[in-house]
Amino acid sequence: MNVSEFRKRGKEMVDYMANYLEGIEGRQVYPDVEPGYLRPLIPPTAPQEPDTYEDIISDIEKIIMPGVTHWHSPYFFAYFPTASSYPAMLADMLCGAIGCIGFSWAASPACTELETVMMDWLGKMLELPEAFLAGKSGEGGGVIQGSASEATLVALLAARTKVTRQLQADSPELTQAAIMEKLVAYSSDQAHSSVERAALIGGVKLKAIPSDGNFAMRASALQETLERDKAAGLIPFFVVATLGTTTCCSFDNLLEVGPICNKGNLWLHIDAAYAGSAFICPEFRHLLNGVEFADSFNFNPHKWLLVNFDCSAMWVKKRTDLTGAFKLDPLYLKHSHESSGLITDYRHWQLPLGRRFRSLKMWFVFRIYGVKGLQAHIRKHVRLAHEFESLVLQDPRFEICAEVILGLVCFRLKGSNKLNEALLQRIGSAKKIHLVPCHLRDKFVLRFAICSRTVELAHVQLAWEHIRELASDLLRAEKE
Amino acid sequence: MNVSEFRKRGKEMVDYMANYLEGIEGRQVYPDVEPGYLRPLIPPTAPQEPDTYEDIISDIEKIIMPGVTHWHSPYFFAYFPTASSYPAMLADMLCGAIGCIGFSWAASPACTELETVMMDWLGKMLELPEAFLAGKSGEGGGVIQGSASEATLVALLAARTKVTRQLQADSPELTQAAIMEKLVAYSSDQAHSSVERAALIGGVKLKAIPSDGNFAMRASALQETLERDKAAGLIPFFVVATLGTTTCCSFDNLLEVGPICNKGNLWLHIDAAYAGSAFICPEFRHLLNGVEFADSFNFNPHKWLLVNFDCSAMWVKKRTDLTGAFKLDPLYLKHSHESSGLITDYRHWQLPLGRRFRSLKMWFVFRIYGVKGLQAHIRKHVRLAHEFESLVLQDPRFEICAEVILGLVCFRLKGSNKLNEALLQRIGSAKKIHLVPCHLRDKFVLRFAICSRTVELAHVQLAWEHIRELASDLLRAEKE
Repeated sequence: MNVSEFRKRGKEMVDYMANYLEGIEGRQVYPDVEPGYLRPLIPPTAPQEPDTYEDIISDIEKIIMPGVTHWHSPYFFAYFPTASSYPAMLADMLCGAIGCIGFSWAASPACTELETVMMDWLGKMLELPEAFLAGKSGEGGGVIQGSASEATLVALLAARTKVTRQLQADSPELTQAAIMEKLVAYSSDQAHSSVERAALIGGVKLKAIPSDGNFAMRASALQETLERDKAAGLIPFFVVATLGTTTCCSFDNLLEVGPICNKGNLWLHIDAAYAGSAFICPEFRHLLNGVEFADSFNFNPHKWLLVNFDCSAMWVKKRTDLTGAFKLDPLYLKHSHESSGLITDYRHWQLPLGRRFRSLKMWFVFRIYGVKGLQAHIRKHVRLAHEFESLVLQDPRFEICAEVILGLVCFRLKGSNKLNEALLQRIGSAKKIHLVPCHLRDKFVLRFAICSRTVELAHVQLAWEHIRELASDLLRAEKE
Repeated sequence: MNVSEFRKRGKEMVDYMANYLEGIEGRQVYPDVEPGYLRPLIPPTAPQEPDTYEDIISDIEKIIMPGVTHWHSPYFFAYFPTASSYPAMLADMLCGAIGCIGFSWAASPACTELETVMMDWLGKMLELPEAFLAGKSGEGGGVIQGSASEATLVALLAARTKVTRQLQADSPELTQAAIMEKLVAYSSDQAHSSVERAALIGGVKLKAIPSDGNFAMRASALQETLERDKAAGLIPFFVVATLGTTTCCSFDNLLEVGPICNKGNLWLHIDAAYAGSAFICPEFRHLLNGVEFADSFNFNPHKWLLVNFDCSAMWVKKRTDLTGAFKLDPLYLKHSHESSGLITDYRHWQLPLGRRFRSLKMWFVFRIYGVKGLQAHIRKHVRLAHEFESLVLQDPRFEICAEVILGLVCFRLKGSNKLNEALLQRIGSAKKIHLVPCHLRDKFVLRFAICSRTVELAHVQLAWEHIRELASDLLRAEKE
């Protein structure tokens, strides 16, 4: 394909993208296909000679679309939102054309420098403490990771290296393995499974701290476990506090947990994957109070801040904690500015070596929406969640299962788990809307997450009417 | 930005992309900027009110482009190639619009299923042993990772879990830490720094096996180290063999190393990040002989197979080795087909949870080029490398430092390292071409990698003339 064909096909693709997103409401949000549907539809091997572009394009509607779960449909209420906006898509197109691999400053200075400044912009939007900003001579700074899972793992590994070096400095006879055997990380029992995974990968124990009645980690439970572990000769070193849990968007109590971590010399990492975007609104910023106690903080603009996946924003107070943990410098990656102290080589901040020019998406989105536009997006979602909550509360057959703070509503039919599983199954079979369940303690609960950029009150009302009808059918069938 | 503005801006962006790539030869390949250049050019905070799109676009040439290292310039000969092709860019645009996060089959069945089939297509192009293919009921299969670094880490972690479970099954009293203390991974002293990093993250020792005169890992050196380590009570568990090292594109001797690994029950991972793409050509396929001994195999189509970053292809013979190491299943990620055995949930195969619809890029590229078109691309690059090699050989002042097998030529001025460092500095200052050095044993060597999709013989000849002139100037200056 030469450049003039790309001009033509690219413009057709822009129209296809626009048509897809403009008409997405008309597509069934969850597909009908069964596992293994795709393989019989395409040849068993790649073609030796080129196919035509027309064939490929017609296969998109024939082969791909029937198997797509439409995350940007206004009837998609599952998981958490994943961001989608036109300026982000435009920036990603540009990113594809530039196609640099920005592992070091020299590999493309603009890629590194725009990222540092965009992370400062975003940090200021959230009113992060100065210590997290790079500025011109800060010790902290931000980096774009691929996902919150990676950010948690990177923080855990940096904390592991830091505590190991401290202990070995005091007792040089200690081996790494002897230390690792005793290291313990902590998170609430409501934390995302990626925290458990990070501990598994890092080869350290993870203990789940029982959350309180609001599904929040509190001082007392953490303190109790820490003391027991220390008495048993273990070495607590790392705490993950979650702001906006995946199950029910609960918030660990940072103002309680933070001082304990600081006093005990534990690395505090904050995972605000979903909720973090909301902190750009002054009325939600208080939910971030206590961030000053943290060593690292992460949230996903690719969830709720209109920056398409992937863009997971992570800040640290001491960048040397990361670079100290990961830095390896073969000659073919060295460059003349490296030791100047002025530059950032982001490869030392992350797990992979390669990295795309992802800050372009932030730059486009922040400028095209402005902070006010982004705040309006957050506020609309929170408002719609409260609308849904009040609809649920008006129906005495249902209950709300956790406080609605941002864009997620956890609800269920009053009654057994089996009843609610049956309701979910009916919702799943009807395929008019898409949502997923969770467990809150021993309760099976439905999660209604406001997701799409284009979702409006009418969609939420339709979804609720649909759920109510299915519930009525179900309750009628149960009685018979 | 609404959909109709996106249609307009998207088409303008397609033209910008086309113009950029069409005119890239006219841009200086390596930028003039100094560290910190960008921050003074943009405001210290994000705008409250939206900026205009025109402002953003005009800032691209004013602020971004002056700081870009142009990886797709035909004068870029640094590192290794990073892929860029028009069909891949079109597919990425579609991927952005669909915007699904394919962590499980249910999260978007097409995203998972196309990936599995594309990895089979690619595996067949390479003539991988059947055991690596998913097929309809295979135990192996492929997955797209973000980078070769991640693939190495994933393989190491899976191997670590496997050996730990085996040892604990035999001796239940062994703790994980007691085992990890004794685990040893191995790679050649020429392996990429990401192998050392994977061991660091995984908390296991890594030993570098001295490579032979051709920079290859051989049986004797590996065997010797293994025996010494076993005698010392250590537990060898993991070997990374590199096909196409980053320094000089040397090849570890798989046919020697493989049987040793199999016999010793060591996980063999093959890192063919750059060279792997070449194995689609029958004349280079012999370089992959011995892959049948491996447990996992990885290379980067995003380097040399015209699939834009990121797309790192990894295969395993036993998918349960990966899923067994990483599987954690919270309810909100469960779905009804999960236990059917028919489906793949790729989140268990990788470090992050989220994932883009990256197989679309493979599908577009494989079909638009056909296998023959992809082979032609590889062959052109190898031919150009040999052309450069023969130019170097014609000048008695220079020497070739490693056998030229694929698209990389390692060369230097006969003489001191200091002389060659001075030559590189002159090349760097002139900024007509871009290349990076490496160390081969104690020699400072220049790497000339054929990178751009659009590089032709004329560019290579110009680059060589330029290098020769700079060398002449340098040698003249040295004499004075």
